[in-house]
Amino acid sequence: MSESVEVAQHQSPLPSWNEGSTKRSIVNFVHEVTTPGSSRFVKPDERIAVFDNDGTLWSEQPAYFQFEFVLDRLKAMAPQHPEWKDNAVIAAALRGDMKAVAAGGVRGVLELATITHAGMTTDEFSKIVEDWITSARHPKFNRPYTDLIFQPMLELLTYLRANGFKTFIVSGGGIEFMRVWSEKIYGIPPEQVIGSSIVTKFEMLPSGPVLTRLPELDFMDDNVGKPVGIHRHIGRKPIAAFGNSDGDLQMLQWATAGKGSSFALLVHHTDAVREYAYEASAIGKLEVALVEAKSKGWTVVDIKQDWKRIFPFEVGK
Amino acid sequence: MSESVEVAQHQSPLPSWNEGSTKRSIVNFVHEVTTPGSSRFVKPDERIAVFDNDGTLWSEQPAYFQFEFVLDRLKAMAPQHPEWKDNAVIAAALRGDMKAVAAGGVRGVLELATITHAGMTTDEFSKIVEDWITSARHPKFNRPYTDLIFQPMLELLTYLRANGFKTFIVSGGGIEFMRVWSEKIYGIPPEQVIGSSIVTKFEMLPSGPVLTRLPELDFMDDNVGKPVGIHRHIGRKPIAAFGNSDGDLQMLQWATAGKGSSFALLVHHTDAVREYAYEASAIGKLEVALVEAKSKGWTVVDIKQDWKRIFPFEVGK
Repeated sequence: MSESVEVAQHQSPLPSWNEGSTKRSIVNFVHEVTTPGSSRFVKPDERIAVFDNDGTLWSEQPAYFQFEFVLDRLKAMAPQHPEWKDNAVIAAALRGDMKAVAAGGVRGVLELATITHAGMTTDEFSKIVEDWITSARHPKFNRPYTDLIFQPMLELLTYLRANGFKTFIVSGGGIEFMRVWSEKIYGIPPEQVIGSSIVTKFEMLPSGPVLTRLPELDFMDDNVGKPVGIHRHIGRKPIAAFGNSDGDLQMLQWATAGKGSSFALLVHHTDAVREYAYEASAIGKLEVALVEAKSKGWTVVDIKQDWKRIFPFEVGK
Repeated sequence: MSESVEVAQHQSPLPSWNEGSTKRSIVNFVHEVTTPGSSRFVKPDERIAVFDNDGTLWSEQPAYFQFEFVLDRLKAMAPQHPEWKDNAVIAAALRGDMKAVAAGGVRGVLELATITHAGMTTDEFSKIVEDWITSARHPKFNRPYTDLIFQPMLELLTYLRANGFKTFIVSGGGIEFMRVWSEKIYGIPPEQVIGSSIVTKFEMLPSGPVLTRLPELDFMDDNVGKPVGIHRHIGRKPIAAFGNSDGDLQMLQWATAGKGSSFALLVHHTDAVREYAYEASAIGKLEVALVEAKSKGWTVVDIKQDWKRIFPFEVGK
């Protein structure tokens, strides 16, 4: 056995997590549910763990990364859509007036999302996302968005899988947007990604069958939609849920309901230097769920305190 | 090594399949896509196989088994619903007049399905299905419906999984109806079952959160719905698809589209003695897909010729 293998085998799991009660709560839970004979033992088949994406597995500031994609798509598509100049929300987005976009509310943002995400086949859309995700850069870090994933959460995904868990993403973000890169960056295959979706339609073209994306919302995987999406896709209750905002509250309530062993964790963004510090933000608001976490004893990650490193690109430091 | 282990290891796969071109087409396909260096090699992650359920993995005559469940539920629920006597389709179903039920068309049958499948929590519904599936008996074979599964298809599922395939059910039947027993009888976990569904709603009761089932169709996983359901749940194209009726045609077209290796198979029910012989039947009609199978070179199982045994309970014979 080589020395490096020995070192790896003796390394504790979760090296980017500082020692303390947060890390201990995770390790204790995993130990309990995987110890045969323990009263809290859970069969491998039932070890389902669900993860929110934006703000839980990767950053979500200064705006949801998919919203940047929407803006870039609008700009790319605008020359073919002269009629957009008469649409207040689109016009505001195109001139970068985010206040006016926000004034359109959720409905306005959803309209921007559906028009930029529809009108092509599923294969064409995947290609558009793939091109964007490799070329776009985060405004603060000047790196691809896929670099802005949380190293401690990657270690947590690996740790859970090594202990027989099946890991799923359950996000308000677009299911087909995430599936393009989820396997590569998180090791989570497309069939374990749950998200919001638009309607698709099967069509037989002379060249063969396609699925065409229509500008119509099919499912909103947020808030009360998360347990519905989990039930639709997984068909059983998760025993562990990881989120960071009020949009994850119902998912955490659902995972911890009932008598069996369960675990819930919220990521609290407290590090303005290394990442962002926020909770009352319009993006990733964490208020109601934080109160409930305290009353129910859910684990809350204080990024500043609990994470030794935040991003993989810091590892070499 | 004990003798029995040696025998097992040397047994060819698919023992309930007679030797011939049908079996050979399956074994050749699996061999090609799993042979490293072969031009038809497919990475394990992409070895997705989808199976219709009714008529493909278990019998579907003299009526879809879930329809028998609907009729039994109607009878059990009728005393609490005096208003049903004014509903022509329900009244016909309750007095066993299947011709009058059929006259109500798909809409009538869907109405029967939604009213008997809604009005309870998801946990309560699972319990109802579990009780029914253990107590109900098939009218011809006088056995639990779960005995009416096809031994050759069980062997095929096992054979594919042993070769790195992930196996999914993609059925017009109810997703929550199947998930109760799919793992036990097919080894297919709930998260790999795709089917038709009704709307569910998250509610916080004093006793905790529940998902309530509403009498409203959410998704019809049949015909053109099958590729849509596959895309929604799996997010990538299967490379192998198995069906038995015209309702599976689009699924087989979808799986075999594009340039990569793929395989499509139809089960043709030709054995009136051991099971049933039909193709122009209202249940499991196989006409258009059979023509397309011939023109495209898809594999067609002739049950009478190709299957040595049909049901597991024959194995000891």
